[in-house]
Amino acid sequence: MHKLTLETAETMVDVALAEGDRLGLQPLCVAVLDTGGHLLVLKRNEHASLLRPQIATGKAASVLGMGFGGRELARRADLMPAFFNALSDLTGGHMLPVPGGVLIRNSHGEILGALGISGDTSDNDELCAIAGVTATGLTCDTGAS
Amino acid sequence: MHKLTLETAETMVDVALAEGDRLGLQPLCVAVLDTGGHLLVLKRNEHASLLRPQIATGKAASVLGMGFGGRELARRADLMPAFFNALSDLTGGHMLPVPGGVLIRNSHGEILGALGISGDTSDNDELCAIAGVTATGLTCDTGAS
Amino acid sequence: MHKLTLETAETMVDVALAEGDRLGLQPLCVAVLDTGGHLLVLKRNEHASLLRPQIATGKAASVLGMGFGGRELARRADLMPAFFNALSDLTGGHMLPVPGGVLIRNSHGEILGALGISGDTSDNDELCAIAGVTATGLTCDTGAS
Amino acid sequence: MHKLTLETAETMVDVALAEGDRLGLQPLCVAVLDTGGHLLVLKRNEHASLLRPQIATGKAASVLGMGFGGRELARRADLMPAFFNALSDLTGGHMLPVPGGVLIRNSHGEILGALGISGDTSDNDELCAIAGVTATGLTCDTGAS
Repeated sequence: MHKLTLETAETMVDVALAEGDRLGLQPLCVAVLDTGGHLLVLKRNEHASLLRPQIATGKAASVLGMGFGGRELARRADLMPAFFNALSDLTGGHMLPVPGGVLIRNSHGEILGALGISGDTSDNDELCAIAGVTATGLTCDTGAS
Repeated sequence: MHKLTLETAETMVDVALAEGDRLGLQPLCVAVLDTGGHLLVLKRNEHASLLRPQIATGKAASVLGMGFGGRELARRADLMPAFFNALSDLTGGHMLPVPGGVLIRNSHGEILGALGISGDTSDNDELCAIAGVTATGLTCDTGAS
Repeated sequence: MHKLTLETAETMVDVALAEGDRLGLQPLCVAVLDTGGHLLVLKRNEHASLLRPQIATGKAASVLGMGFGGRELARRADLMPAFFNALSDLTGGHMLPVPGGVLIRNSHGEILGALGISGDTSDNDELCAIAGVTATGLTCDTGAS
Repeated sequence: MHKLTLETAETMVDVALAEGDRLGLQPLCVAVLDTGGHLLVLKRNEHASLLRPQIATGKAASVLGMGFGGRELARRADLMPAFFNALSDLTGGHMLPVPGGVLIRNSHGEILGALGISGDTSDNDELCAIAGVTATGLTCDTGAS
């Protein structure tokens, strides 16, 4: 696959939300952006709090922006807090260096887009992200070393 | 119904997208906001152009912001262009006075949210909005007099 | 009186809202700003649409910003549309040149603050503004010549 | 109750301001937002400083945005300062992780809105928030564990 379709992106979101239900997590919001950082699909449980769409979208935009998964962004933000603070300003807050934002790669390692989740802890959000992306046969790059 | 669920919102979006396919329209993006103006679901055909998510969301936010459907906003913008230019600035561009943004009302007339579509002409966008909202048994307020 | 108190400002708002009820107007939002343009009180009917607080506040800020009531601003905006478009940008949309924003003056003609209303037509909004301000014994400057 | 009315919101604000007077606190500003984060009522003592409306509104928006009371937000901000810095940027400064922002819940635990106070210490602000919300028979969720 060389380009995400709405259909594939939606499968990821539906599987991620179902995984959140299965694990008994807090109400979630999940967003998938294409390779250019533009929304393909976003779904928010009606009980999720109000900022979740922005945070889910922001996590996905962050990993596309830097080309690393959220765990690697978190490591770098620990080492370079001033730089990540500046990136946050540069992007109007669309630099959220935490787990739960993942790159979506094909079998050639090419980036097809990104998925972001918000609602529970970042670690739990990421579990759902992995479930969603891998269910489509694509590769989920969390930024774990 | 007193509050939109993700499930109901998604039905609206899916029916609206299917109506666009049936009519042979350009690739569409459809967004549904809850009563407070927060995203419940957004889907964008992968061939729709890049600004469609912001336009679809902006159309929905516009009708919630003023309490009128997009056709009434268009009439008022024709009469008061300076005021609507100011509203555009006031809302950071989230005032799009055109058809294709509709209020979603229940049988008591209460506003439960809004749906916005972008991708084809505003008139065609609105046809899909009507199809989507009415498929759920809720009322679609386009702002037609 | 040389400075608006919260108590006086609140009387204006309550009388304005009651006048709207008496006239059978749409649900309203009313805001009073002090002489420095800072909110003293804002009340929004729970059925008023979402942008009403920003519009009411913006109308009040506009008249303080230029030192004329909303009717005079409307006249000037008709004569100088490019200038008022620029003022809208300059103020982030807090230049709304329409009736319904009024200056509050004491018996010496000093400006003590401003009141803005949004929800019905601008003319009807202004009727409530006049009722509210004059109920406190202060002078309501609508910008009518 | 399933939706805050202006009347109920105003009772909360009046009781909160009276509690501040009773405790001899600094001049306060109190804001109540509805479930979607939109202002229902704001009152600012005429001696309170200029930023109090934005801070009170921002505290209330913060707890609605994340779905936790201000004390829980403060705990999380201590643990994840970079993330909360980014949330501040993402929201244009409407993420204030301190006590004095509380969720308003009904007897079913549903969020009906939020109240924010600013003017004295955060702990004292919160005392007034609790007094205001509980006076209406609704539940005040401060985020205390």
